[in-house]
Amino acid sequence: MDILKDEVNQRLIELLNPIKEGKVKEAMNYSLMAPGKRLRPLLFLTTLKAYGMDYHPYLDIACAIEMIHTYSLIHDDLPGMDNDDLRRGRPTCHKQFDEATAILAGDALLNYAMSTVLNVKMDNELKIDILTRLFDASGVNGMIYGQQQDLYFENKQANVIELQDIHKHKTGELIAVGMQLAALIAKKSDYEIWSKVGFDLGLAFQIQDDILDVTSDSKTLGKNIGSDIENNKSTYVSLLGIEESQKRVDELFKKCYENIYAMQINHGVILELITIILKRVN
Amino acid sequence: MDILKDEVNQRLIELLNPIKEGKVKEAMNYSLMAPGKRLRPLLFLTTLKAYGMDYHPYLDIACAIEMIHTYSLIHDDLPGMDNDDLRRGRPTCHKQFDEATAILAGDALLNYAMSTVLNVKMDNELKIDILTRLFDASGVNGMIYGQQQDLYFENKQANVIELQDIHKHKTGELIAVGMQLAALIAKKSDYEIWSKVGFDLGLAFQIQDDILDVTSDSKTLGKNIGSDIENNKSTYVSLLGIEESQKRVDELFKKCYENIYAMQINHGVILELITIILKRVN
Repeated sequence: MDILKDEVNQRLIELLNPIKEGKVKEAMNYSLMAPGKRLRPLLFLTTLKAYGMDYHPYLDIACAIEMIHTYSLIHDDLPGMDNDDLRRGRPTCHKQFDEATAILAGDALLNYAMSTVLNVKMDNELKIDILTRLFDASGVNGMIYGQQQDLYFENKQANVIELQDIHKHKTGELIAVGMQLAALIAKKSDYEIWSKVGFDLGLAFQIQDDILDVTSDSKTLGKNIGSDIENNKSTYVSLLGIEESQKRVDELFKKCYENIYAMQINHGVILELITIILKRVN
Repeated sequence: MDILKDEVNQRLIELLNPIKEGKVKEAMNYSLMAPGKRLRPLLFLTTLKAYGMDYHPYLDIACAIEMIHTYSLIHDDLPGMDNDDLRRGRPTCHKQFDEATAILAGDALLNYAMSTVLNVKMDNELKIDILTRLFDASGVNGMIYGQQQDLYFENKQANVIELQDIHKHKTGELIAVGMQLAALIAKKSDYEIWSKVGFDLGLAFQIQDDILDVTSDSKTLGKNIGSDIENNKSTYVSLLGIEESQKRVDELFKKCYENIYAMQINHGVILELITIILKRVN
């Protein structure tokens, strides 16, 4: 898995090369190359591997997914949003640079993600299909909707159903879309089952976040802990307690494993990655 | 020209329809439907008309250009950027709603512009070519680069060459790209000449802005006057004075007219629009 991650990191550096020098490029590079888990691009590439496909022609799509994820982190961290000062173990983008640069770097990463996929050498129809699904997932009916709802429920008590809906959009959409795109590229009819796996995994990941927010420390996590309490956000832990939350995580992973085993794929590679997520401490 | 503008406005309303209800949709709608000149979409559609083409199949591309323009205005107005509170005669997006909603509405409009073009029924190869050029123009080597340089020269003295480079990117790119795309769709080899017209027009438009910033009033302009002085920005007027600035505007329009007359097109429709811009008071 480390080789795959290195390939993504190496390609991200190359992709940023043609950008005109300036503070925005520096900020894009700073946030993108901060030590991240690369979960979303790895899920996409590993799903391709699970289909026995050569993932190399699609490495730039993996990078585009990571660009979209990073733009969303930069904007979420802004003073006008969650006002966080630590991310991936480093000062957030607006702390390291300034607010204006962070806003522009986020905009630029979203825009550059589009350009990156547009430049991939592949069949035009497939490319348009990929772009459509990717930017539906990241857009106002997907990830951005989740962020809106997350802000809406600040200082309001969200129940578990509402919380699940927030996470489905805010986290699940961009996790699910990578696996969906891999099925699309492999021309397999597993699209719906990957959607389930992706959304379950996204929810499990988010509940893990809720748990780590109260059980871990900021050094391990690389971001501030206790920020949900500070922003008066409902979490799985505040609604259900740690034990019941952990039970939900375990159930969701079990569902993921079952759904993955039900497909005619190389289960090993994808289960290895899912198990890394299951055992994550940050 | 008013019919064309009405068609753009009507289609923008329709395009926003499928978005999930919430504050971000409200804010997108608020900023997008504020009374704007619709200069960029009109230049695109009118150039198509100048080629004798039916522009209706491409109306959504015009709307996408306006979405990109509007997102850039929303983000530029943010407290962390130019901190403006009046735009298109109304409170800016973050004043009417809040900063978080304005950041998300901007993100959503950029993302939605992409989805909008992706959904247009047209030849796949042409669609990819259009998307590539459009998002190169709006991206980190285009419009965003211009915004970065604009901020870089706050509190620094930019000379006329540097100012021209800022305007070329910040304003020229998105004005030029519409006319370039029209030539592309019409399968004409006038791409380069439209680039010249677009960039000259963008620069003229921006110098007009500099002049209006000191000669007009905020009611007529629909935005605050004197903001360049407040942000310690060099302008054509501060560097060259009003008279010389106006001379430059006149020269740029003369070049536009000449370049347009040199093409085998229906000059009348495009010259009518350019003359409206020439005579603009806001």
